[in-house]
Amino acid sequence: MEKEDEKKTEVYESYVVVHNIAKRHNVGTLARSATAFGVSELILVGRRDFNAFGSHGSTSHMRFRHFHTLSLARNYLKEKDCDICGVEITDNAVPVNTHPFRKSTAFLVGNEGTGLSPKECEMCDFFVYIPQYGGGTASLNVTVAASIVLQHFAVWAGFSERTREGNKFIVADKPALTGRKFCAETAESIAEERKLKKESAGNGFFSESGNNENPANLLDSLFDS
Amino acid sequence: MEKEDEKKTEVYESYVVVHNIAKRHNVGTLARSATAFGVSELILVGRRDFNAFGSHGSTSHMRFRHFHTLSLARNYLKEKDCDICGVEITDNAVPVNTHPFRKSTAFLVGNEGTGLSPKECEMCDFFVYIPQYGGGTASLNVTVAASIVLQHFAVWAGFSERTREGNKFIVADKPALTGRKFCAETAESIAEERKLKKESAGNGFFSESGNNENPANLLDSLFDS
Repeated sequence: MEKEDEKKTEVYESYVVVHNIAKRHNVGTLARSATAFGVSELILVGRRDFNAFGSHGSTSHMRFRHFHTLSLARNYLKEKDCDICGVEITDNAVPVNTHPFRKSTAFLVGNEGTGLSPKECEMCDFFVYIPQYGGGTASLNVTVAASIVLQHFAVWAGFSERTREGNKFIVADKPALTGRKFCAETAESIAEERKLKKESAGNGFFSESGNNENPANLLDSLFDS
Repeated sequence: MEKEDEKKTEVYESYVVVHNIAKRHNVGTLARSATAFGVSELILVGRRDFNAFGSHGSTSHMRFRHFHTLSLARNYLKEKDCDICGVEITDNAVPVNTHPFRKSTAFLVGNEGTGLSPKECEMCDFFVYIPQYGGGTASLNVTVAASIVLQHFAVWAGFSERTREGNKFIVADKPALTGRKFCAETAESIAEERKLKKESAGNGFFSESGNNENPANLLDSLFDS
């Protein structure tokens, strides 16, 4: 069942895919867990809330990528030879603690409250769920669920553990800031991104000044909680 | 290393101990994860914020218990023959995914941001930590960390999985409401609880009317997120 003790020779990657995520608080915690568990990219599909996301891509070590549709995201991930795994309690879902992984995997997590839609489920190659043992809640908080799945994948994939110092893991130097926070795939995406940026300008989170000197504080305050 | 496949004959229990927890949002999510992972009691030591906790004990299936000091909490847990396990990145902490458990275990989780104090660490028999693999954050959100640990313990302990229906686990019937929300241990605790209740009366979360008809809505709204 579990093969963590075997020396893995292949290098695996994990991705998180979020479609039209709604609540901003969960995004910061999700990004924090994603970077802790070695996720390569956090992929946003559909709606992007710059209030929530604006400061993250440039200051954390998480790469954000955006697609307008699920099928564009699927194409991108399939070019990388990823499995797409839905995190959802479906009839054929496998307990995540049995580590039913085969290769690099992108995890599609549901929006808060509603879980994965039929269209989202269609995109998935398989599903994992997190077994529950007490009768007090029908499901877990989406960020908690995603974190548990990412932790299990990291163990399965044999990712190299970060160095600890005192009671904390050592945070890497922040990468040099780039002008663009999202890796947009097409000319249309870039044009729309510019339009959205313009609409969002002035809210203080997504600066149009081009140098983005202070977003770290916003992110750090989110990560303090 | 992992013994989940062996049939366990002994019945284990898990507990969560929180000392002077500060932020209300995390408590709801922590209680939600605790009930999902079959935790027997959520033990609060020191400060109790009724705005945060008032509605939980009576409406969720989580039993809340309160002690004024860490040593009273430790005595209570030792009478139950529990190990006390700190969730903290200490030098001698063991990766939680190796399942270093022996029997019923109470997990002491740190307050947000600061981790466990030396006094809290003194109370612990051993420590677990959650390995991290990416360089973007020094530690995890405390509720995420606790949830991951509780999930691993539930797998190790062989708790019985709840029945699923559609895309959700079935929520048990709500237990009959009792007048007291905390299981106070001593006459002093009860007296102080009455005093705190009085001080907190009128905030709408901790009704003094004696029947507590509506707290479920408050809890449910918290659990929606």
